[in-house]
Amino acid sequence: MTRQVLTAFAVCALVFTTVPAKAQENESSWLPSLLTDTPEQGFDLAVLMARRAVKTTQTDVDTLHKLRPAYANDPDSLIHVSGVIAAYFATVAEANGYWRD
Amino acid sequence: MTRQVLTAFAVCALVFTTVPAKAQENESSWLPSLLTDTPEQGFDLAVLMARRAVKTTQTDVDTLHKLRPAYANDPDSLIHVSGVIAAYFATVAEANGYWRD
Amino acid sequence: MTRQVLTAFAVCALVFTTVPAKAQENESSWLPSLLTDTPEQGFDLAVLMARRAVKTTQTDVDTLHKLRPAYANDPDSLIHVSGVIAAYFATVAEANGYWRD
Amino acid sequence: MTRQVLTAFAVCALVFTTVPAKAQENESSWLPSLLTDTPEQGFDLAVLMARRAVKTTQTDVDTLHKLRPAYANDPDSLIHVSGVIAAYFATVAEANGYWRD
Amino acid sequence: MTRQVLTAFAVCALVFTTVPAKAQENESSWLPSLLTDTPEQGFDLAVLMARRAVKTTQTDVDTLHKLRPAYANDPDSLIHVSGVIAAYFATVAEANGYWRD
Amino acid sequence: MTRQVLTAFAVCALVFTTVPAKAQENESSWLPSLLTDTPEQGFDLAVLMARRAVKTTQTDVDTLHKLRPAYANDPDSLIHVSGVIAAYFATVAEANGYWRD
Repeated sequence: MTRQVLTAFAVCALVFTTVPAKAQENESSWLPSLLTDTPEQGFDLAVLMARRAVKTTQTDVDTLHKLRPAYANDPDSLIHVSGVIAAYFATVAEANGYWRD
Repeated sequence: MTRQVLTAFAVCALVFTTVPAKAQENESSWLPSLLTDTPEQGFDLAVLMARRAVKTTQTDVDTLHKLRPAYANDPDSLIHVSGVIAAYFATVAEANGYWRD
Repeated sequence: MTRQVLTAFAVCALVFTTVPAKAQENESSWLPSLLTDTPEQGFDLAVLMARRAVKTTQTDVDTLHKLRPAYANDPDSLIHVSGVIAAYFATVAEANGYWRD
Repeated sequence: MTRQVLTAFAVCALVFTTVPAKAQENESSWLPSLLTDTPEQGFDLAVLMARRAVKTTQTDVDTLHKLRPAYANDPDSLIHVSGVIAAYFATVAEANGYWRD
Repeated sequence: MTRQVLTAFAVCALVFTTVPAKAQENESSWLPSLLTDTPEQGFDLAVLMARRAVKTTQTDVDTLHKLRPAYANDPDSLIHVSGVIAAYFATVAEANGYWRD
Repeated sequence: MTRQVLTAFAVCALVFTTVPAKAQENESSWLPSLLTDTPEQGFDLAVLMARRAVKTTQTDVDTLHKLRPAYANDPDSLIHVSGVIAAYFATVAEANGYWRD
């Protein structure tokens, strides 16, 4: 299967997947707040948001699992992931006033 | 069809597609406000904006549908999508004062 | 023609194209203001700016038209375009105080 | 092993790896604060965060080591890494009030 | 010549090119100010900065010229350039208070 | 040597290279301050930081030198470098209050 077709899936999933209904106040939210006690917790939240955004596009966990080889990795993807986490962390850090206190 | 030609479509669509007329105040807007009640709703809005931007460039829904394979995905695209959502979320979060209250 | 050569054109165009003379106050500007009445209009302005930046580099509209295939698209490019629009929208949104009022 | 499969690992690792439990206040944190005494220390912290984000996705240090050739490098990756460090540094710099005093 | 080697040049040029001596106050500067009268002029300044950054890395104008084919372009590069201009424009716009007055 | 292996080096170098000890107050720092007198000097500082980040990952100057062909360049890399410089410049410009005075 060509890369183009594979990528198409991601775009289509992005476009067509139903946006989840607004979180009901009375059920638990995966993102109740951007506030954390420490910078490290804020970093973990950024990682969580980066993951959640991936799941929003590809909701089939089995598909993701099948693609997981045990002993491999792509360095470029690792760098890219680090950059995406940086973007979420910037927002979380500003929300928390950079934990200056 | 080569990747170059395919990409060309996206650029041309970006350049030539008519910018929609300004939203009339008396019709419903897909983006009436950046304000949301919760961070999770803000995240959903960011996903919506990322999708809308894709549709702005490629308006032919049938074309997008034909490209959708059921059991595939491109991990690089998923990471990229996560980064784009992060960019929209940063704006939505700032608009909402990071839901600090 | 190789991708490298094609890309070279974009860089050269970026470097050598004459920067337009400063907009005369007495002629109409394509960007008279960053202020818009609504978020949706701000989004449309972001799309316009993304397009304008493309035209700044490749000013030959015929060249762009020849590259346009009717029924194709490159998903990766669509994601990339969405990210570029996000960057312009961030600036427009901040200019407008996020349309909070 | 194809690039697609390799990249898939990174995405899966991003999605499935357990987010570490919240840092206990009574154990040492790798990120106790975003504040540093000097801009150079802030730059080093940005490098540390970029590395940590990579390790969050690929936790197997042996795998990373095996991929290390002694006399090679990929210029594109080096540029990409520089951009990721820039993103973390922007956050660290703002946290420190740009070390203006 | 492979892409890797070509890219290597850009990195090496980035690393080894001598940073120009600090602009003397008594000679003209290519960037005397970030302030412009209008948003359109700010956009033009962003384009100028994007070009200047390219020239900083590849200072040989002849090399750039030889790479310029007259009737080609790479859509992906055009999108990328638009994103880079967006980044410079964000800074210029903030410097100018978004030309709100 | 494949691109994947080459890229792996950059990631490994990012992860494993020892973070330099905190700059001693009594020795000279390569980044003593983000403040500059003029926008042009701020731009030069941004270029310096982009280079420094590259050197942080690939510390072997000889390796970098061997990769330098005299008459070549990769346009995509040049655009990418311009974007990375834009990111550092955004931080430097904000640190300097955009040199508004």
